[in-house]
Order: sequence, then C-alpha cells, then structure tokens
Amino acid sequence: MSLPADILPLEVIDKTIDQPVWIILQSNREFTGKLVGFDDFVNVIIEDAKEWIVNEEHSELVMEHNGRMLLSGNNIVMLVPGGKKDV
Amino acid sequence: MSLPADILPLEVIDKTIDQPVWIILQSNREFTGKLVGFDDFVNVIIEDAKEWIVNEEHSELVMEHNGRMLLSGNNIVMLVPGGKKDV
Amino acid sequence: MSLPADILPLEVIDKTIDQPVWIILQSNREFTGKLVGFDDFVNVIIEDAKEWIVNEEHSELVMEHNGRMLLSGNNIVMLVPGGKKDV
Amino acid sequence: MSLPADILPLEVIDKTIDQPVWIILQSNREFTGKLVGFDDFVNVIIEDAKEWIVNEEHSELVMEHNGRMLLSGNNIVMLVPGGKKDV
Amino acid sequence: MSLPADILPLEVIDKTIDQPVWIILQSNREFTGKLVGFDDFVNVIIEDAKEWIVNEEHSELVMEHNGRMLLSGNNIVMLVPGGKKDV
Amino acid sequence: MSLPADILPLEVIDKTIDQPVWIILQSNREFTGKLVGFDDFVNVIIEDAKEWIVNEEHSELVMEHNGRMLLSGNNIVMLVPGGKKDV
Amino acid sequence: MSLPADILPLEVIDKTIDQPVWIILQSNREFTGKLVGFDDFVNVIIEDAKEWIVNEEHSELVMEHNGRMLLSGNNIVMLVPGGKKDV
Repeated sequence: MSLPADILPLEVIDKTIDQPVWIILQSNREFTGKLVGFDDFVNVIIEDAKEWIVNEEHSELVMEHNGRMLLSGNNIVMLVPGGKKDV
Repeated sequence: MSLPADILPLEVIDKTIDQPVWIILQSNREFTGKLVGFDDFVNVIIEDAKEWIVNEEHSELVMEHNGRMLLSGNNIVMLVPGGKKDV
Repeated sequence: MSLPADILPLEVIDKTIDQPVWIILQSNREFTGKLVGFDDFVNVIIEDAKEWIVNEEHSELVMEHNGRMLLSGNNIVMLVPGGKKDV
Repeated sequence: MSLPADILPLEVIDKTIDQPVWIILQSNREFTGKLVGFDDFVNVIIEDAKEWIVNEEHSELVMEHNGRMLLSGNNIVMLVPGGKKDV
Repeated sequence: MSLPADILPLEVIDKTIDQPVWIILQSNREFTGKLVGFDDFVNVIIEDAKEWIVNEEHSELVMEHNGRMLLSGNNIVMLVPGGKKDV
Repeated sequence: MSLPADILPLEVIDKTIDQPVWIILQSNREFTGKLVGFDDFVNVIIEDAKEWIVNEEHSELVMEHNGRMLLSGNNIVMLVPGGKKDV
Repeated sequence: MSLPADILPLEVIDKTIDQPVWIILQSNREFTGKLVGFDDFVNVIIEDAKEWIVNEEHSELVMEHNGRMLLSGNNIVMLVPGGKKDV
C-alpha cells in the first residue's frame, strides 16, 4: 500500500544528521540539539541537547545535557530540522 | 481482508503533495503549510508551516516554521487537503 | 483465527462509498459527509464534511469543509452509514 | 503460543450473529442492537442500535440508530451476547 | 527471543477453564465468574459473571450477567484464577 | 536490528523464576510475590502475591492473593527481582 | 524503508552497557543506575538504581534499589548515557 511520495519523512530526518533539530514531545518537554542518529521508529539520538519546558506564553530553559541522549519515538509529536526559532 | 475501495486515503494524501494542507493533532495544535512528504504511517513533512492553537472560539497563530518539519502520524487526527478555511 | 462471519465491517464501509456517513471520534468531534474512501486501518476520506461539536445536550455545527478530508482510523469510535439523524 | 482452549472468543461472537448484543465502550457509551458482523479486530456491525449514556446510577437512552453502524474494536471493553438486562 | 519459562501465562489461563476467575479492568470495573474461553490476546469469555465497582474501601456488586460475555484483552490488568476472595 | 547486548531483559526475568519479585503497574498498584511464569510480552504469573496501594508517602497492604495470578504486560512499568525493600 | 543513518539508537544504548544511565519515564519517575541490559523494544535492565520523583523545581531521591530491575520500554521517554547531572 506504499505509493511513490515526493519525499519520505525518514529522508528528511536523514538529511538533518549532524545539524540542529528541535523536537517536541507529547508532554510539554521540548529539546534542541544536534541530531546524530535515528531509526525506523523515529527513536532519535541528539547531542548536547537543551531541554525546555513550554507553558502558555513562555519557553523556559530547564537543563543542558552534554553528550548524547535518546528520545523514544513513541513520545515525539514534532521534529523540526534547523532547530528552534529565537533560541 | 482488503476490498477494492473507490479511493485510498494514501492516494488522497499523495495528490496533496506540493499543495496546502491543514493538519490537526490530538492535542489542540493545528498546522497549515505545504505538504511535501509522507509515509505509510501517515508521518508527514510540511513546509513553511504555520502553527495554531485552537481554543473554544478562537484559532490563534502561535508560530511560523520556515523550512520543513515532521509531524508524527500517531498524533494526527485530521488532514485536510487545500488548507484551513479563512486563513 | 478468522471465522466466516455473516458480514465483514469493511464490507459495510465499502457499501457506504458515495453515500452519507456520520463519524464520531474519541474526542467530542463528529463529522457528517459523503464517504469516498477508506483503507484496512479504517482511515477514511470524506467529502464536503460538516464538523460538529457535541456537548451534553447539544450538537453544534462548527465548520463546513469543502472538498475532501482524511480522518485517522486511530481516533474513530463509530461510523454510521446513512449519516446523522435530524441533520 | 496458541493453546487449545475450550471456547474461542471469536466463536462466541460468531454465535451471536443475528441476535441481540450489548456493547460497552471505553467512554461511558453503551449500545444495544442486533449483531450482524465482526472481524478479527473485534470491529463490529450492529443493526437498529440503541445508544445509552451510563452514569452513576442511571442508564439513559440517548438515541436510536436505524440501520447499521460500525463500532471500532479499539474502543470496546465488553460485549454481552443476549443484550442488556432490563431494557 | 523466547526463553524456556517454567510456566507460560496462557497455560495458567488454560488451566482455569471451567473454574472461577476474577478479572480486573483498567477502569474500576471488576468481574467474577466462570472462565470458559480465551485467545492469544487474552480476550476472555466468562459465564454468569458478577460485575463490581471498586472504590476506595468498598467493592459493590453492580450487576449479574447471566450467560456469556466477552472482555477485551486490551483492558485487562489482572486475572486471578479461583475468583475473588470474600465473595 | 538486534545487537549483542550483555544481558537480555527476558534473561533477567527468567533468572527470577521461583524467586521474590516486586512489580509496579501504571496505576498506583504494586505487587510482591513469587514469580512463577512469564512470556515474551512480559505478561507474568506471580504466586501468593501481596497487593499494595502506594500513595505520596505510604505503601499500604491492600490484599493477599493466595495461589496464582496473571498481570498483563501492557500495564507493567517496573519489575524488580528480589522483591520490595522493607516488606 | 530503512536508511543508512550515522548512528542507530540501539548502538548508543549498547555503548552505554556497564556505564551510568539516566532514564525518565512517562510518569514523573526517574532512575539513575548502571545499564546492564536492553532489547529491541528498549526494555532495559539497570543495576543499583536510584529512583527519583521530579516535581516542579525539585528532584527528590525516593528509593535505592540494590541489584537489578527491569524498566518496560513502553514507558521510557528519555535515556541519557552518563547519568543525571548534579547527582
């Protein structure tokens, strides 16, 4: 049931490798960092990530994570190549 | 258990490539933008998206995302080819 | 583990093609429109849909969607061939 | 990992075809009607259904659905052959 | 990735056939009755079930279901062969 | 996509057979007992279980279950070989 | 639909074996400890874990778990090789 699409989502993720990315989870956690890995389930590895809590009006820096971390694909809502605007 | 349907949902998505689309997530986030990619799990890539928060009566523009972004198929409730009315 | 049932749900959906349908999602959104497509995951395509918000006592018309839209099968609770009564 | 069970759940559903059934969803919606179809995912088709909202003490008739409707297996908690008691 | 375990859960369920069982769902519904069927998804068929609503301190009999009923495996948290204590 | 890991989770569960285990569910239910069975979905069988409700500060014994019971893998968050500390 | 990514998430987990890890669940539970095992579903085994409850501003040590424990992959949101900062 696969149709030839112009662009596959995993291709877009692949082109973001080694570049900034902004990832938003189902909770109000957000992460910015460098994308260094991913798999078919959109589990991702980011490097030197900053973690943000986003409320009504504000986006607040909560923590900086040196090195790598895994974010589980189950919880990812949005993935924005290029990173977060105005950060 | 597949029956010949007149139109397959993925065909409708495929015909929307390079055209405006309006996507509504399980949370009250909505996105308008140009659809540029998708896969069998209805993960989608949109371009130059506008993000909206929708409350009782209002639909408020929250942010503009230049370039591409991925929206995870798990969280998508509706996808409307042609974009959002009155925007 | 498949038994011969008198009627398969996908057959009922297939017979509703090009006819009015009423679809109720897990949230309090409801849609009426013409069913024009579906797949094995009960993702559906409806045409010229009306969207309703249903509260305690009332069913309120929120919006009319010209053209086609996709509703994700994950969020569909009920699908009623013939459309919504009293609309 | 399949063991010989005395009765398979799908067999019980199959024997309920053309008979009254009572179906309870994860929300507080309930349906009574004639079971006319099902599949391996316990998606079901019922005919001439009555819809009930069940609160603390009361079970209130909300609507009558003439003809057929599909209830998605994802949302079904209980299926009771024979229908609802005291209705 | 299957290891030889001393006892398989489905074997325990199978040995409970025709015996009392106590089943607890994700909501605060509980059922006692005779287990008469099951499948690999832990969908179960119970017979002559009693339904209980369990609150803080009390377990209250809500209804008796003569005959058979299906409980969907998705919603089952616990299954206790032998039935409910003190009932 | 399987890599050689030092220890597989199912091996750890397998080594816990016939030993005390502490299991925590997604709700605030917890169980201690002897692990006697499991399968690939981490459905488990425990024997002579004690059930605990855990609130802010306290862990309260709610019930003792003689014999065996099944806990559905869907609802299991943590499984601790050796049982619960201070019990 | 697998593309050659620079780094696979499971590789990153594999390199963390026998090293400190910080794991955050969907609830507000967090764990630090030594990662000693995992599988393809990101079920993990940690050793000598500390459990933390995280609220608005504070991260409070709740319990120390000697020996091994399993955390179910379904509930894992983040996995940070190297452990928790400032602990």
